[in-house]
Amino acid sequence: MLPLYAPLITPFTDQENVDLDMMSRNLEKYEALPLTGYLVNGSSGEADMLSQSERVALVERVSKLSRRPVLAGIVASSVVEAKRQIDSHEDLRIESFLIRTPGYYGGQFDQVDFFHQLADYSRRPIMIYQVPQYTGIKLTGDQLSRIAEHPNVVGIKDSLGDLSLLNEVSWPARFHYFLGASALIQPGVAAGVAGGILALANVVPEHCRKLLDFSVRPDKAEQARKLQQQLIPLNRALGGSRGFGLAGLKEACRLMGFEVGRLRSPLKPIPSGGTEQLQALLERLPNLQ
Amino acid sequence: MLPLYAPLITPFTDQENVDLDMMSRNLEKYEALPLTGYLVNGSSGEADMLSQSERVALVERVSKLSRRPVLAGIVASSVVEAKRQIDSHEDLRIESFLIRTPGYYGGQFDQVDFFHQLADYSRRPIMIYQVPQYTGIKLTGDQLSRIAEHPNVVGIKDSLGDLSLLNEVSWPARFHYFLGASALIQPGVAAGVAGGILALANVVPEHCRKLLDFSVRPDKAEQARKLQQQLIPLNRALGGSRGFGLAGLKEACRLMGFEVGRLRSPLKPIPSGGTEQLQALLERLPNLQ
Amino acid sequence: MLPLYAPLITPFTDQENVDLDMMSRNLEKYEALPLTGYLVNGSSGEADMLSQSERVALVERVSKLSRRPVLAGIVASSVVEAKRQIDSHEDLRIESFLIRTPGYYGGQFDQVDFFHQLADYSRRPIMIYQVPQYTGIKLTGDQLSRIAEHPNVVGIKDSLGDLSLLNEVSWPARFHYFLGASALIQPGVAAGVAGGILALANVVPEHCRKLLDFSVRPDKAEQARKLQQQLIPLNRALGGSRGFGLAGLKEACRLMGFEVGRLRSPLKPIPSGGTEQLQALLERLPNLQ
Amino acid sequence: MLPLYAPLITPFTDQENVDLDMMSRNLEKYEALPLTGYLVNGSSGEADMLSQSERVALVERVSKLSRRPVLAGIVASSVVEAKRQIDSHEDLRIESFLIRTPGYYGGQFDQVDFFHQLADYSRRPIMIYQVPQYTGIKLTGDQLSRIAEHPNVVGIKDSLGDLSLLNEVSWPARFHYFLGASALIQPGVAAGVAGGILALANVVPEHCRKLLDFSVRPDKAEQARKLQQQLIPLNRALGGSRGFGLAGLKEACRLMGFEVGRLRSPLKPIPSGGTEQLQALLERLPNLQ
Repeated sequence: MLPLYAPLITPFTDQENVDLDMMSRNLEKYEALPLTGYLVNGSSGEADMLSQSERVALVERVSKLSRRPVLAGIVASSVVEAKRQIDSHEDLRIESFLIRTPGYYGGQFDQVDFFHQLADYSRRPIMIYQVPQYTGIKLTGDQLSRIAEHPNVVGIKDSLGDLSLLNEVSWPARFHYFLGASALIQPGVAAGVAGGILALANVVPEHCRKLLDFSVRPDKAEQARKLQQQLIPLNRALGGSRGFGLAGLKEACRLMGFEVGRLRSPLKPIPSGGTEQLQALLERLPNLQ
Repeated sequence: MLPLYAPLITPFTDQENVDLDMMSRNLEKYEALPLTGYLVNGSSGEADMLSQSERVALVERVSKLSRRPVLAGIVASSVVEAKRQIDSHEDLRIESFLIRTPGYYGGQFDQVDFFHQLADYSRRPIMIYQVPQYTGIKLTGDQLSRIAEHPNVVGIKDSLGDLSLLNEVSWPARFHYFLGASALIQPGVAAGVAGGILALANVVPEHCRKLLDFSVRPDKAEQARKLQQQLIPLNRALGGSRGFGLAGLKEACRLMGFEVGRLRSPLKPIPSGGTEQLQALLERLPNLQ
Repeated sequence: MLPLYAPLITPFTDQENVDLDMMSRNLEKYEALPLTGYLVNGSSGEADMLSQSERVALVERVSKLSRRPVLAGIVASSVVEAKRQIDSHEDLRIESFLIRTPGYYGGQFDQVDFFHQLADYSRRPIMIYQVPQYTGIKLTGDQLSRIAEHPNVVGIKDSLGDLSLLNEVSWPARFHYFLGASALIQPGVAAGVAGGILALANVVPEHCRKLLDFSVRPDKAEQARKLQQQLIPLNRALGGSRGFGLAGLKEACRLMGFEVGRLRSPLKPIPSGGTEQLQALLERLPNLQ
Repeated sequence: MLPLYAPLITPFTDQENVDLDMMSRNLEKYEALPLTGYLVNGSSGEADMLSQSERVALVERVSKLSRRPVLAGIVASSVVEAKRQIDSHEDLRIESFLIRTPGYYGGQFDQVDFFHQLADYSRRPIMIYQVPQYTGIKLTGDQLSRIAEHPNVVGIKDSLGDLSLLNEVSWPARFHYFLGASALIQPGVAAGVAGGILALANVVPEHCRKLLDFSVRPDKAEQARKLQQQLIPLNRALGGSRGFGLAGLKEACRLMGFEVGRLRSPLKPIPSGGTEQLQALLERLPNLQ
C-alpha cells in the first residue's frame, strides 16, 4: 500500500494567531481517516507566513497527538537559518525533514551544496521539497541526481509532478519520490512514484487513498482513471494558478467538517460564489461505499 | 495497438533548400519500420521556417510514396492564412490537418474561435497542435473542452505532455489525445493517451513502438518503466530547453542512417562533442531482440 | 528634430481581406500630419497574420503615395524565407528593412548569424526589430553589439524600451536606436534615443511629435514630463498585456477618424465598454494649440 | 541635490555569522563618502537569509554609528510577521521602513491590503520595496496608486526601474519614487525620480553621486549620459541575471577596500576569473577629479 500523507493546513484565530486547539481537533478527525502520516509546515500549512516558534509548536502538537509518522517542513533561504530550524525540533518525534529549495536569489544559489550541507548536519533523514509554482526553482535531473547521492537524503516531494524527472534519474533504493500533484496520482503511480503528499488529502483523504489503491492494481486501471478524472475538477479549484488557492483549500476543509478559522493576511479570502462552487464539486464526488 | 506517428524531419541541401530526394530515401526506410503514419510539417520538420509551397511539396511527396496515414501541419497566425494553407492541400491524400495554436499575439487571440472557424472550413478532420515550449500558448481545460465540441475536431497532439489536462476534460469519443512528449509515454499510456506523435520516433521508432506496446500491457509494467527510463537520456539530449534541440534530433537521425543534410539558418549547429554524446546515448539503448 | 515614424495599422474588409483603398485614404490623412515616415508590416500592422504578397502590396501602396521614408518589415523564421521577403521588395522605394528577431525555436537560433547573413544579402540597410512581448526574444548587449558591427546594420526598433541596453553598447555612429515604447519617450530622449517608431503615432501623431520636441529641449523638461504622463493612460489602454491590444489600437484610430475595417481573426474584438473608455481617454488628452 | 542611499552589504565571518565589527569599519568609510543615508536589510544585504535578531542588530549598529538617515528593511510573507519585525525596531533611530512586497503565494496575496495594514500599524512612515527579479511580484500602476493613497506610505524603491510606472501614477506630494536600478540613473532622473537606493553605491558611491548631480543639470546632459554609459558594464557585472550577483557585489566592495568576509551559503562564490574581470571594470571607470 503506497503511503499517503496530508500536508496539514494551519488554522488561525480571528486575530490571525495559530490556533493549536483547532489543530488538535482536526487531527483527531484525521486520525480516524486512512492517512499514513502528516506533513506539518508545508505550503498548504502557510509555513512561509509563520514564525519558527509557531512552526515548532505545530510540529510538537501533531507529533504528540498522533503516532503516525510526521514530516517537518523547513523553509529557509540560507544554510545557517535552515540549521537553526532543524535544531528547533531537537526533542520532537519526527520522521524526517522536508526541506524546501531556497528560491530568493534563484540561480545564484547552489542547490546541491545546500542540500548536502543540511544532509550532513541533520541527525534525521532529509527530503527535498520541490515546488516551482511558489519558489521558481525547478531542479534538473542532474542536480537531483547529485543531491540524492548523499546517504541522508531519502526522498523528494515533487509538487510540480514532473513524471519525466522521476524517470530521468536512477534513484538510490533508499530514495522515495513522493508526488505532490493530486491531478497526477494515477499516471504517477503507473510511472512508479512511492506515494503521495497531497493537499487534496486534507479535504478528501478517503478518495485519495482509494485512488492510490486502484492505481497500483492492474485490474483496477479503469476505475483508477475514472476516479482520477472525478477528482480533477475539485483539485483544479484548489490550485494556485487557476483555482482559489489556499483560500479554496481551507474553505473545502471547512465544508468537510474541519476547523480552519481564517487565513493569515495578506492572503485573499475566497471570492463570492466560491463556497457554492466548492460545495457543488464536493457533492459531485463519487460515493466510495 | 496504439498508433505511433513520426513527425518527420526535413532534410536540406547545402544551399538550405528542401531536398525531396533525401526525404524520399528516408521515407523508404521508415516504411520498413513499425510506424503507423507520418506527420509532415510539425516542429520537428522545421515547418515554421518553410514556405507554404515547400510544405505542400513535402506533404505531396510523403503521401504519394506511402500508403500510411499522413497528417499535414498547418502553421499560421490568422484564420485567413490557415485557410489558404488548408486549400493548398486540395488534391493530396491526407488523413487530417494538425493545426498549431496561433501564438504571436498571445492572449489577444481567441483560440476557440480560431479552431472552430477552421473546423467549419476544412473538409478533412482537424487536430489541435499544442506546443507551449515554442508558441507560449497553453490551452486551458475549458478552452480545449469547447474546441473539442466541434464534430470536425478529432484530436490533439500535446507536446507539453500535461497528463492532468488529459484527465480534466471529458473528451468526446471521436477525440484522440496524442502524446508529443517521449519522456511520458509509459505514464501517458497509463493515463489513457490514444497514441504518440513523437520526435523520438524519427530516431528509434522500434524502441518507441516497443514502449507503447509494453505500456498497454499490465503484465509488462516493469519492462515498460525500465524502457521508458532507458529512453529518457536520449530524449532529453534532443530536447529544446536542456538538450541539443533540432540540431541534435537531426544528428541522431544521421547517426541512425537517415539523410538530414544541413539545418536551415539561423538554427545553431550541434556543438562540438555533441555527436559523440549522441553516439554514446544511442549505443547505450537496449537491444530489442 | 528627432524622427517619428508611425507603424501603420492594416485595414481589412468585412471578409478580412487587406483593404488597400482604406489604407490609401488613411495615408492621405497621415501625410498632413507631422510624421517623418512610415513602417509598413510591423506588429501594429498585423504583419505576422499576412501573406507575403499582401505585405508587399501594402509597401507598394504606401511607397507610391508618399514621398516620406518607408521602412518595410520582414517577419520570417529562417534566413531563406527572410531573403525571399527581401527579394519581393526589389523595385519598391524603401529606405530600409526592419527585420524581426526570429523567435520560434528560441535559444536554438543564432541571432547574430541571422542578422549578419541578411545584412550581407540586402542591398538596402537593415534594422533590428526587437519585440520580446511577442517573440520572447530579448537580445543581450553583447549580441546587439556584435550585430551592430556589420556596416549594413543601421539601427534598432526596441519595442521593450530597455534604456539600460541603449547605454550598455557603444553603438557605431551609423546606428540609430529607435524607441518603440510610447510610455518612455521622455526618459528615452533624455537617455539618447534617435527617434520613435510608435504605435501611438497612428492615433495621436501630433501629441507624439510634441512630446519628442519638448523632450529634446532642456527648458521644456517640465512640459515634457507632464505630456508624457498625460499620454500614458491611453498608451496603457492600447498595450497588449494590460490593455486592449491591437483591437484597442484600431478602435482608437477609428475614433480619430481613420478607417480600420475589422481585425483579422482570431484577434479578439474590443470588449464591451472599451470604445467608451478609449473615447474618454482621448478626450482627456491636452489640446495642443 | 537628489538623495543617494547605499543598500549596505552584510559581512559574514568564516562561520557565516554576521560580523558587526566589519560592518562598523565599513560604515566608518562610508561616512566619509557622499551618501545621504543607508538601507539596512535590503536584497544587497542578504536580508532574506538572516534571522530577525540579526537584522535588528545590523540596524542598531548602523543607526548608532551614523547620524545619517537609516531605512530598515522588512522581509515577511505575512502581515503578522511584518508587524513583529516592525516591533523589533521599537527603540531604534530609523527614518522609515522599506517593506518588501510579499511574494510566496503570488497572485493569492492582496498587496494593497498588505501595505495598508502595515501603514496603519507602523508609527514610522513606510516605503514599498518592489524587486520583481527576486520576488516575482510586479505591482501595477493601479495597485501602486491605491497603496500610495495611505498617508503613511511615503515612497517606493523600484529595483526593476520601470520608468513608465513612475509616470503612470499621479503620486501624492509626500510620495518619493526611488530608483533601485543603477543602469537607469540618468534617464530615471530625467523622468523625475526622487533619488537612488543603489547597490552600486556600495562600491562606487562617488560615481553614483556625480551621476545624480550631472543628471539633474540640463547643461551637463552629455556628461551624465557618458558617465551612465561608463558605469553600465560594472553594474551589469554585479547584476543577478547576467552578472555575478551578490558574489560580484561583495567582491567589488572588497576590491574597493571594504570588508566583506564570506557569503552566506548556499550563495555561490564568484567564479574563477571573476575577480580579474571586476578589477578591470573598476580600473576602467573615469577618474572623477
